[in-house]
Amino acid sequence: MPRKLFYGKCYRHMYKEILNVIKIGGQVLDDPPQMENFMNQLSGIRGAFLLVHGGGNRATQICSRMGIETQMINGRRVTDAETLEVVVMVYAGLLNKQLTAGLQSRKFQAIGLCGADSNLIRAEKRNVAGIDYGFVGDVHADSVNRSQLKRMLEECWVPVFSPITHDGNGQLLNTNADTIASAIAIAMSTEYRVKLLYCFGKGGVLEDIQNEHSIIRELNLDSYKQLEQRGAIHTGMIPKLDNAFHAIQQGVSEVHIMHINQIKPFNENKHVGTRLVC
Amino acid sequence: MPRKLFYGKCYRHMYKEILNVIKIGGQVLDDPPQMENFMNQLSGIRGAFLLVHGGGNRATQICSRMGIETQMINGRRVTDAETLEVVVMVYAGLLNKQLTAGLQSRKFQAIGLCGADSNLIRAEKRNVAGIDYGFVGDVHADSVNRSQLKRMLEECWVPVFSPITHDGNGQLLNTNADTIASAIAIAMSTEYRVKLLYCFGKGGVLEDIQNEHSIIRELNLDSYKQLEQRGAIHTGMIPKLDNAFHAIQQGVSEVHIMHINQIKPFNENKHVGTRLVC
Repeated sequence: MPRKLFYGKCYRHMYKEILNVIKIGGQVLDDPPQMENFMNQLSGIRGAFLLVHGGGNRATQICSRMGIETQMINGRRVTDAETLEVVVMVYAGLLNKQLTAGLQSRKFQAIGLCGADSNLIRAEKRNVAGIDYGFVGDVHADSVNRSQLKRMLEECWVPVFSPITHDGNGQLLNTNADTIASAIAIAMSTEYRVKLLYCFGKGGVLEDIQNEHSIIRELNLDSYKQLEQRGAIHTGMIPKLDNAFHAIQQGVSEVHIMHINQIKPFNENKHVGTRLVC
Repeated sequence: MPRKLFYGKCYRHMYKEILNVIKIGGQVLDDPPQMENFMNQLSGIRGAFLLVHGGGNRATQICSRMGIETQMINGRRVTDAETLEVVVMVYAGLLNKQLTAGLQSRKFQAIGLCGADSNLIRAEKRNVAGIDYGFVGDVHADSVNRSQLKRMLEECWVPVFSPITHDGNGQLLNTNADTIASAIAIAMSTEYRVKLLYCFGKGGVLEDIQNEHSIIRELNLDSYKQLEQRGAIHTGMIPKLDNAFHAIQQGVSEVHIMHINQIKPFNENKHVGTRLVC
């Protein structure tokens, strides 16, 4: 029986089998009114939840201000020692603690984390032939410390994950936030009915990239591959969708890609954004 | 009965009544060999322990690189909105997570925290007539969420506190690390026999500031005040000693001011550095 500690809203007694893994994109983190609106909608969420956030835009800004050049390969940040310091500062420090303090002010028992904390997510340094990504970590479901995370959720805490992991030998690693969300969702699907929500600044996956209203209501792997082949999927969306389809194939109950301001209708069981199906 | 989760060295079954609150100064954080040596000595510590770290030097460097002017009043950093972002990045991000990953690599179940996480330390924004310190927080023993922290210690976790707190209304605050250590030590002294260790780059409190070997073995409040009046106490040491004497007056069992490389002899019950007495 989960206990309610100190304070904090805990709906697990009603929907204790559900865990919502909510990924929020870096761009919305830079928009305080949007973030306020998002946090205000969380009180109605059904079941336990945790957040995973990005923060690439902010990291790029801070790099630029510090005179550090940003280099991207295939949409991934090349992370030399200096860039690693910046992403640890921005993701695990600034954005993570701002979000945690914002949730605490709404009486959620939020706890800001990176993968090194309580050894929650252990990654492997990326090793790709011919490309040196630097201090970049790759994760999968087995990287997640399921028992430790479950203990935290049973305390009615709201874990807030920054996309920084460690290798267990003292090295921090920069890790893709979409992949972390997917890995956590898959790992925890042995314990919960997991809903994985990718929340960002668009209404969902668009059929026509020029038309914000052309949201695809349901997407299966075949139709995704067709859209990808004809170049209709935005480059930044491809790793998100790859992660999302992988999650649904590995036992995650539901995957939704939606606008960050649609948490409330989602909680009211309305169809919002794009739902991925097998 | 505390449980041992996942992994992690836990000596609480032997010395379960003892809690060591170890403050490590900002200057030693900038010295990797010294930090390695410090972390290697922790395996012999008796009882539970937690760390509180500073990081002012590094924050000043990053401010300088970002073109942000550092302003100090009475040894305290004036923290405008921009400076707050830097200290949150450096303290709660970079230094906190590097330390946590280093401890994890030594099989301590470390968890990096700031005061906003799990609402562990709630501060009040400093309000001093005539001086605007900006986003600086003041704490005392009642600011510490004793029950939540005790839960973490019972899990054999090693909390690693950065000196960032929150006001409960979403505002992060920059808080003096010596005061945080003292506030935690006092708060937890109702639950444990607390040893408060201020570890830094000197052997203890010096009788003659020019002579590194003139370490005072025991210091009481009267002799401290005499030394202070004749100007023998380094300005940076005064808040540390004020906090330390306050702690010992408020129920903390032992307070020691010592070199960071002296943890091992301390654990072997040798007299190291300066011991404060009532």
